[in-house]
Amino acid sequence: MKKIRDFQEFVSKGERLYLRHLSVDCVIFGFHDDSLKVLLLKWKDGGHWCLPGGFVKKNEAVDDSATRILKDRTGLDDIFLQQFHAFGDPFRDRNKELLSIQGKSGKWLMERFITIGYYALVEYSKVSPQPDWLSEECKWVDIHKLPKLIYDHQDIVRKALAELRRSLNDHPIGYNLLPEKFTMPELQRLYETVLDKTLDRRNFQKKMLSLKILERLKERKTGGAHKAPYLYRFDKKKYAKAVKQGLRFGF
Amino acid sequence: MKKIRDFQEFVSKGERLYLRHLSVDCVIFGFHDDSLKVLLLKWKDGGHWCLPGGFVKKNEAVDDSATRILKDRTGLDDIFLQQFHAFGDPFRDRNKELLSIQGKSGKWLMERFITIGYYALVEYSKVSPQPDWLSEECKWVDIHKLPKLIYDHQDIVRKALAELRRSLNDHPIGYNLLPEKFTMPELQRLYETVLDKTLDRRNFQKKMLSLKILERLKERKTGGAHKAPYLYRFDKKKYAKAVKQGLRFGF
Repeated sequence: MKKIRDFQEFVSKGERLYLRHLSVDCVIFGFHDDSLKVLLLKWKDGGHWCLPGGFVKKNEAVDDSATRILKDRTGLDDIFLQQFHAFGDPFRDRNKELLSIQGKSGKWLMERFITIGYYALVEYSKVSPQPDWLSEECKWVDIHKLPKLIYDHQDIVRKALAELRRSLNDHPIGYNLLPEKFTMPELQRLYETVLDKTLDRRNFQKKMLSLKILERLKERKTGGAHKAPYLYRFDKKKYAKAVKQGLRFGF
Repeated sequence: MKKIRDFQEFVSKGERLYLRHLSVDCVIFGFHDDSLKVLLLKWKDGGHWCLPGGFVKKNEAVDDSATRILKDRTGLDDIFLQQFHAFGDPFRDRNKELLSIQGKSGKWLMERFITIGYYALVEYSKVSPQPDWLSEECKWVDIHKLPKLIYDHQDIVRKALAELRRSLNDHPIGYNLLPEKFTMPELQRLYETVLDKTLDRRNFQKKMLSLKILERLKERKTGGAHKAPYLYRFDKKKYAKAVKQGLRFGF
């Protein structure tokens, strides 16, 4: 199939290409410099802000739609996307007139959509944000300074953040977000940023070490004013196993 | 709208009534006599086993579809249903010919469906299982003795059970499943049944009491051979708050 070239073609071919009534929205969290950001799009038409999203091709797995959307907007491959909720209120995208689509061929786009939400946590500086046909801009916005979002996208972000935080209880994070070698305080700051709260230093270290996914290196970090802290790295095999099987953490 | 009377009418009116490509499946767990069961349907046509499910009306919230399906199959109202996953593989219901539907009006039913999974945990003896149009039987089956299920329904049960167990880390269970007054060993058996593992008695009691959702009564249970154990009941307000806000348990 040839790639769709512009918004008009997308609107007119969409009905044939995509499953009716079904969309995917991605909450892409970015971690950088001890702060948590969300990737947003700004529409050309009216300047409304929204989440990166798209539709499900007639023979495409919904997970693959999410991966495709993430790839199109960020350039990133091989990112773990977690499906977290389907938003199925019949009035969730009631203010469809924001789209200002005319003509019969765009009718499918004005119907009710159930959207399936996915989230990912990525290292912000690895992303090259790409606007879609609707948008003039694709950019990172601090989670504490979100603009007004269309439809129920604010709820979608809120739920995604709650689920990301919940996932910290039974899944490790850090791989791909921290440098290969990192200190315990660096790892703690990642968790503190996502949880948006301060954690007890000794408890955190004890819990983290008990997971047995970290390898303590012989070298120490040098250059700071304090006593040189140990460097760690993830044991990739054990980390992957913990992602797959889950673990018990409990924040 | 008049109620649909039979399977033929359901097939022929379905396309106009329901959203295309979208279904709901419910994993209804039943707790009774220290064992965990799942409510299943057995088709008239071929005797295949499946989960109770249905479709989403054009103006119906997906959560309301799940509530309607639960009510139709169990007679139960006011049951907390938890959405847990959307199953979106294009081949998940590939063996549609099991349905043996003929004629053009049933074409919508033979297309691809994305199904949204919900689970509930109910007190088995409160349920009056009701077959649907497709089924000759609706009954409880022990989770350890499930028959072969159609499509990906086995995966749906597995995922629902994993999510129910995961939910025990941050949500209480017991209300509506235990008598109003119960002993700590009775509560522990409920948790052990859902988790399918033995828990340490003292640890369990300590954790449970730390949640502060239990009220210890002055009366004790009498009649057993052992020292009469304390009776407890849930503090409904605190229990409801814990359901809403979540709590930290960590099994």
